[in-house]
Amino acid sequence: MTGVLQATQIAVIGLGAMGYGMALSCLHAGHRTWGFDINPDAMSRFRDDGGETGEIPPSVDIVMVVVLNAEQTCDVLFGSYGLVSRLKSGAVVIGCATVAPNFAREMEARCGEAGVLYLDAPISGGAAKAAQGALSIMAAGVPAAFQAADPALKACAETVFELGDCAGPGSAMKAVNQLLAGVHIATMAEALTFGMTQGVAPEQFVEVISRCAGTSWMLENRAPHIVDGDYSPKSQINIWPKDLGIVLDIAKQARFSAPITAAALQQYMVAVGMGLGPEDDAAIAKVYARNAGLDLPERDP
Amino acid sequence: MTGVLQATQIAVIGLGAMGYGMALSCLHAGHRTWGFDINPDAMSRFRDDGGETGEIPPSVDIVMVVVLNAEQTCDVLFGSYGLVSRLKSGAVVIGCATVAPNFAREMEARCGEAGVLYLDAPISGGAAKAAQGALSIMAAGVPAAFQAADPALKACAETVFELGDCAGPGSAMKAVNQLLAGVHIATMAEALTFGMTQGVAPEQFVEVISRCAGTSWMLENRAPHIVDGDYSPKSQINIWPKDLGIVLDIAKQARFSAPITAAALQQYMVAVGMGLGPEDDAAIAKVYARNAGLDLPERDP
Repeated sequence: MTGVLQATQIAVIGLGAMGYGMALSCLHAGHRTWGFDINPDAMSRFRDDGGETGEIPPSVDIVMVVVLNAEQTCDVLFGSYGLVSRLKSGAVVIGCATVAPNFAREMEARCGEAGVLYLDAPISGGAAKAAQGALSIMAAGVPAAFQAADPALKACAETVFELGDCAGPGSAMKAVNQLLAGVHIATMAEALTFGMTQGVAPEQFVEVISRCAGTSWMLENRAPHIVDGDYSPKSQINIWPKDLGIVLDIAKQARFSAPITAAALQQYMVAVGMGLGPEDDAAIAKVYARNAGLDLPERDP
Repeated sequence: MTGVLQATQIAVIGLGAMGYGMALSCLHAGHRTWGFDINPDAMSRFRDDGGETGEIPPSVDIVMVVVLNAEQTCDVLFGSYGLVSRLKSGAVVIGCATVAPNFAREMEARCGEAGVLYLDAPISGGAAKAAQGALSIMAAGVPAAFQAADPALKACAETVFELGDCAGPGSAMKAVNQLLAGVHIATMAEALTFGMTQGVAPEQFVEVISRCAGTSWMLENRAPHIVDGDYSPKSQINIWPKDLGIVLDIAKQARFSAPITAAALQQYMVAVGMGLGPEDDAAIAKVYARNAGLDLPERDP
């Protein structure tokens, strides 16, 4: 057999900030890769980068679904296009959106009815790591699903956490991570602007706090955006009403009170109301700055 | 001159978890060190460790005040004992409690009237680092205060942040750090117990999240206490109603809205109401566990 015949065929549905990088990583790993997005610009860019953008053939081994939420995931897999019904037996769907664990279990069951494997595999790490094939993937599924997904996981991830032998735990851990990440970004903004009212300059905040017990991964990653006045979106404000909303939906079903998450979500809602949704999520600081009459650093021209 | 005559004379007021370690660090650095605490056990322990516990002589060069709050600091310096009035001109008071920046400025002014220098120098790092002489100190004061305080800072600190040339910025940065640290501990507990409702075991939470974007310094330091079921106090729940209360007092004066800090403070208040005040601050998880009917890990017998 030649290398071409052996190559894994992968389809990536959703060529946004994360999906595009993952599709590129699959190409770079030598896999024949189809990309699909409703945005024609993303499609033509992917074609220019060497990807396939024609109809996804029934011969694909792996389908990565890198869309916004559960509704879009369900629509891709079981909507009018009926992707799952076209796949060969033994193919695997890798579900990467942030969804409720129950939804992941439902997708696993419905794929199973069609003879298709399902890996519950939310992703973490941001667009830059997606393009480098260096994501963290929080994965759960039957051993056969892990095995079938392996070429795509190897291409896209630096770290694959194997969290369980059926769908659900991957999405559960992702929700836990998003709770923390979303609260930490908003708390960073609360602390940075609070410091400004006391004469602590934003750059001094980053310099000192990043070396103290008050630091967080998100603080170190996002606070420099505020110091630089750079709100070009690495990760949008819009992510957080969605993801913290998913967390609180799951929490409500579990009768779990999450007051700090709820407080953070409200700050993101204010940000969305201010029209900041498409900006980088560090722009949550603008909510605090407006409330307190503070001037955040401006971007150097 | 002999080494003994050259030795700096230091008094440490408050031999609690932090002060005791700092007094030991001064002794280990070769300074003649007096300790004072209202608890006679701490005094006799310090005497056994080679410290002095008699009346603090007017010849001391440095007084470190390592008490709970502003009220105790003021009482030590200007209360019935009148410590500042007994000090020689050019001695320096190092104020280590977490206090409002305005209070630090007031202490600096009142010490100045008595010819005594004042260093606004809140500490961070916990009891273990205090005993190792490896604290972080967030310091601000006139250059002469830094110079006079230098032997004690060298003995106690791994890192001294020089944040300004008058009192205030040290306490401001400490308040910023405490806002973050207090919120991060409570958010860790919220996320860990939320994960438990979704089948994420506490040890899996620590293993995975500490390698993801949701991590924080406090999560990595405190979550293992919950996994181990070990609530012996490294840092007490009682610290947080005090320190987050100081943050919100300062915020109120600055007309600054801090809703996430406020939500976290309420969770600590519930913990205090449950009688958890003297336990390790990781015990904030017990508030969430009680609310959601979860069983946290028990300590191995």
